[in-house]
Amino acid sequence: MEPGLADIRAAAARIAGHVHRTPVITCAALDALSGAHLFFKCENLQKVGAFKMRGATNAVLSLGPQEAACGVATHSSGNHAQALALAARTRGIPAYIVMPTSAPAVKRAAVAGYGAEIIPCEPTLAAREAMLAEVVARTGAAFIPPYDDDRIIAGQGTAALELAEDVPGLEWVLCPVGGGGLLAGTALAFAALEPGARVVGAEPAGADDTARSLAAGRRLPAVDPRSICDGLLTSVGERNFAIIAKHVQAVWTVDDAQVVAAMRLVFERMKLVVEPSAVIGLAAALGRRGELSGCRVGIILSGGNVDLDRLPWLS
Amino acid sequence: MEPGLADIRAAAARIAGHVHRTPVITCAALDALSGAHLFFKCENLQKVGAFKMRGATNAVLSLGPQEAACGVATHSSGNHAQALALAARTRGIPAYIVMPTSAPAVKRAAVAGYGAEIIPCEPTLAAREAMLAEVVARTGAAFIPPYDDDRIIAGQGTAALELAEDVPGLEWVLCPVGGGGLLAGTALAFAALEPGARVVGAEPAGADDTARSLAAGRRLPAVDPRSICDGLLTSVGERNFAIIAKHVQAVWTVDDAQVVAAMRLVFERMKLVVEPSAVIGLAAALGRRGELSGCRVGIILSGGNVDLDRLPWLS
Repeated sequence: MEPGLADIRAAAARIAGHVHRTPVITCAALDALSGAHLFFKCENLQKVGAFKMRGATNAVLSLGPQEAACGVATHSSGNHAQALALAARTRGIPAYIVMPTSAPAVKRAAVAGYGAEIIPCEPTLAAREAMLAEVVARTGAAFIPPYDDDRIIAGQGTAALELAEDVPGLEWVLCPVGGGGLLAGTALAFAALEPGARVVGAEPAGADDTARSLAAGRRLPAVDPRSICDGLLTSVGERNFAIIAKHVQAVWTVDDAQVVAAMRLVFERMKLVVEPSAVIGLAAALGRRGELSGCRVGIILSGGNVDLDRLPWLS
Repeated sequence: MEPGLADIRAAAARIAGHVHRTPVITCAALDALSGAHLFFKCENLQKVGAFKMRGATNAVLSLGPQEAACGVATHSSGNHAQALALAARTRGIPAYIVMPTSAPAVKRAAVAGYGAEIIPCEPTLAAREAMLAEVVARTGAAFIPPYDDDRIIAGQGTAALELAEDVPGLEWVLCPVGGGGLLAGTALAFAALEPGARVVGAEPAGADDTARSLAAGRRLPAVDPRSICDGLLTSVGERNFAIIAKHVQAVWTVDDAQVVAAMRLVFERMKLVVEPSAVIGLAAALGRRGELSGCRVGIILSGGNVDLDRLPWLS
């Protein structure tokens, strides 16, 4: 049974006060460039710099007192790790984060800064899963997956709930897809609230497992995914794919050069710091001017955690 | 007779719909670093990327139909030029912008992009003023000064009006000071609306004419000003200084290294693109932790027009 609007509303009530209600920002210059009316939901301005704070907070606050007492655990080198660490601190319970030794020092420092215990492991999925099993066995912590989880999907859907409330009458909604937590939550929210809106996933051409899966009618894994969008390299999750296949209009793919150009535009014209994964919806919109012409288009800017010493337009 | 709250309110009504009501953003990480509760008024998210859009729009819309018919003119290489160009286009009248030949190509392109006519001149104040007089004589355009003007001061004060409405009970307000349009407008607004708030100017140590002027009790010009804050190198204006001397608590100076550190923090923790001049209030707050400890502090982030190929932390 997939989560529904009631679960997203419950998540919104649960996480209120622990996450930001992020602003929706418009930009005349990007409207002119795209030929459409773009409404950007700024999850880069969310706590920990990414929408991941919504799902992690919802999952942590959904645990019963007994479950929560032993803390939470996950494996992640990215935004989910920081989000879970902060959500656990909010509730006053331990967080155990299995991180590959290849993770950048700045991400390890951020996770440690939120008070989580970091358990290093080899940078393979097998090693991460084995180490996580060990940690869960040792501590009794509850595993909080990054995307393939109803609590996570409902939590991520709260961004779309706010977007639909703040901007009535959207005709398109463009949303990044990696593991599919954000896209699934967004699709569920709009299917219930604004069924006329076409929800579209935006995916890197070099990590297009969701587009291929939709074409094949079954979930296909990502094979050697490569993209500057480091948040979108994971394969789409099982629960996520079922929801996406049912509620999403299409998945559009975008190459890395389009992503870098869109990222620079957002820095320059919107004055927002965004990570590559965050602008893939805008990149898709700029590549599909004909289809969106004159329409009201919601775009979710998913996060802003980017290495400021290595911005991709600086060679 | 200095402008008052009624003028600022009239300006707000006049420019509504032509400028953004910018969001106020908070940041737990910067609260922790500063030991205070910081409320950032995000004028980097304003049209043309700076608060200058407020004053320029107010001045252009204040002109009578006859005055407006021949257009507007100014000399500027910075944000005022872009703001005046866009405000004139909004009203459908010509704008003539005298720009020094030393102005970066990207700024010339932005002004031209808003449909203004650019008149190049030598990069000295004397050459700029002489060329402006010529342009005004030739075209009959109305001169709109960048800061030493009641319409500009009232327009810039609308940012403070919104800040005071959105965040009641501020105890301090930190605001950049260059020519003094923004600081004068901010001081007037808070003197009327929230007289308990202490309004403080923040100024580069290498361009500290306002601080020296306050100490001397009379307006002293900037002498060979040098700072990374390219928007704050001008001497404080006459009208502006009179208002500042009356309503501003103090002017605190900040060195460029503090500005660069604050700028990096805003990019990294707030996910906002800001120019050096914009973060001088935050830099001042971080240098005066003792005085602001535990207080509610408003900080005006004045703009975001920075060269993204030359961010100052990248050597």
